[in-house]
Amino acid sequence: LIVVLTGGTGGAKLVEGFYRVLGDEVLTCIVNTGDDFKWWGLHISPDIDSVTYALSGLLSPERGWGVRDDTFFCLETMRGLGEPDWFQVGDRDLAVHLLRSRMLAEGRTLSEATAAIVAGLGIRAQVLPMSDFAVETRVETPAGELNFQEYFVKRRHQDEVRRVWFEGATEAKSAPGVIEAIHSARAIILAPSNPVTSIGPILAVPGIREALRQTAANIVSVSPIVDGKPVSGPAGILMAAQGLEVSIAGVAKAYEDFLDMLVADLCDAEAARRLNGEGLMVGCENILLQKDEDKTRLAEAVLEQISQLPSRMPSKVS
Amino acid sequence: LIVVLTGGTGGAKLVEGFYRVLGDEVLTCIVNTGDDFKWWGLHISPDIDSVTYALSGLLSPERGWGVRDDTFFCLETMRGLGEPDWFQVGDRDLAVHLLRSRMLAEGRTLSEATAAIVAGLGIRAQVLPMSDFAVETRVETPAGELNFQEYFVKRRHQDEVRRVWFEGATEAKSAPGVIEAIHSARAIILAPSNPVTSIGPILAVPGIREALRQTAANIVSVSPIVDGKPVSGPAGILMAAQGLEVSIAGVAKAYEDFLDMLVADLCDAEAARRLNGEGLMVGCENILLQKDEDKTRLAEAVLEQISQLPSRMPSKVS
Repeated sequence: LIVVLTGGTGGAKLVEGFYRVLGDEVLTCIVNTGDDFKWWGLHISPDIDSVTYALSGLLSPERGWGVRDDTFFCLETMRGLGEPDWFQVGDRDLAVHLLRSRMLAEGRTLSEATAAIVAGLGIRAQVLPMSDFAVETRVETPAGELNFQEYFVKRRHQDEVRRVWFEGATEAKSAPGVIEAIHSARAIILAPSNPVTSIGPILAVPGIREALRQTAANIVSVSPIVDGKPVSGPAGILMAAQGLEVSIAGVAKAYEDFLDMLVADLCDAEAARRLNGEGLMVGCENILLQKDEDKTRLAEAVLEQISQLPSRMPSKVS
Repeated sequence: LIVVLTGGTGGAKLVEGFYRVLGDEVLTCIVNTGDDFKWWGLHISPDIDSVTYALSGLLSPERGWGVRDDTFFCLETMRGLGEPDWFQVGDRDLAVHLLRSRMLAEGRTLSEATAAIVAGLGIRAQVLPMSDFAVETRVETPAGELNFQEYFVKRRHQDEVRRVWFEGATEAKSAPGVIEAIHSARAIILAPSNPVTSIGPILAVPGIREALRQTAANIVSVSPIVDGKPVSGPAGILMAAQGLEVSIAGVAKAYEDFLDMLVADLCDAEAARRLNGEGLMVGCENILLQKDEDKTRLAEAVLEQISQLPSRMPSKVS
């Protein structure tokens, strides 16, 4: 069992790589749901969708979100009816939101709805929401309090970020299977996702961070920061807002209580040596996922790095 | 003010005709909602949609339901996910169901949701659901109890019909504006819709039938039966199941307590003379709506017939 903690589109690409190279070994994804929100009355889970579309081969390679070759006729009609149109839902994409929303309205959990979608799309990996409870990533900006989609999509992450928090996290429970997967994994990978708003909400769910500290599995983070800049999106702004250096050292700091190894880009070799001097294992690879074959190449390289790790340090096991 | 009671696709065509010819006079449609049902978790109002799509020019002329030139990519994806696909919702069509369902979920009424859709589609007529309460047309068949869409669409109205009833009707209230419209109308037209399952549910809502008996407006029915057969659909089977003759006499019988005039097809002239002999005014016209121009032609003919009616008989006013 390989477990990947992921959120966002960069993470989904690497998840796809692991899915392709793992063969018969089970892949379990624990996915951020802090970005979930209501849209046109439907329950949207953007990060779960990114993962399931990536795993099913449906993900649009051009856009990096939504369904390949999708059309937007419903959206056009909604716009004509005066409904908001800043979050772009395609016609095929709608089916997944409808199925999920119907199941939730019928009293099923997000885990159950996700399992139905995963089965319906013919995916053999396991996709677990971090929690079946509502945990909402919120961002304080000069323009007021925003949920993540308002900040990220509607306002194109242009606002100054004063604070990020995860509403509902302290009362949340991890979804069924999450803690068990962390404890029974051979290895755990933190995908190259934003440490603050993609991995951060997962770690904020009570019990998950503790399980990561206690598991016997090695935990490896693939850096979302290359050469002091995020590969994509607002990770830099959000890390700075949380007091983290926008560097591989900042990524290592975010996970310092449970991380066994960081996989950084080749161009960060010098910073990697410094971190290594401070006692963290750091492997350097070309971690940019630009072409389709990069996904499997990086997944294989990360698995190779993991295979060379010693058994987990007793000091990390509480 | 002209008021039309309508349900189904034949009714929607004539409503479109009235809308075109009425000029500045207000058209109010009181629409059957007994066919409403849940589909993919959304609230579908098939008869309201037929009317609003007809009035906005969006109605598909080929199919007679749904939106012109619509695509079905969401439906295809739903089918792939293992969801039911027997009720065909197009991608553009979905927008209206989403808007309505969101408003209902937020605690708004079906009247309010319908008004928002009517405004969003730029329609200047008024479209009122018969009721904001759930009234469900149910059909007893040898295959069991079915709701109307199951009977009509899923099972293609092939089942023997033992009984038709309107669940929830006795506890329902008419929607805001319905009774007022009936009382302030210059004339009221019953569209050429199925008397049992299109007009029947409207008449089953407490207060509506009484208002039709009491209004000073003349009430004219355009026959949905031509030459002893329904123009389309299962009206014949359903009328027979309710003990009504499948003829213009059966139509007259269904409305006998409030009807001032029946507009029948030219081919029913003989039956018309008999009804006339029994005291009912009957006008004969070509009532088949085959070509687009037939809609305005028939609407004008009906208005002309109405203009020749005497003031309403005192015997009909309680």
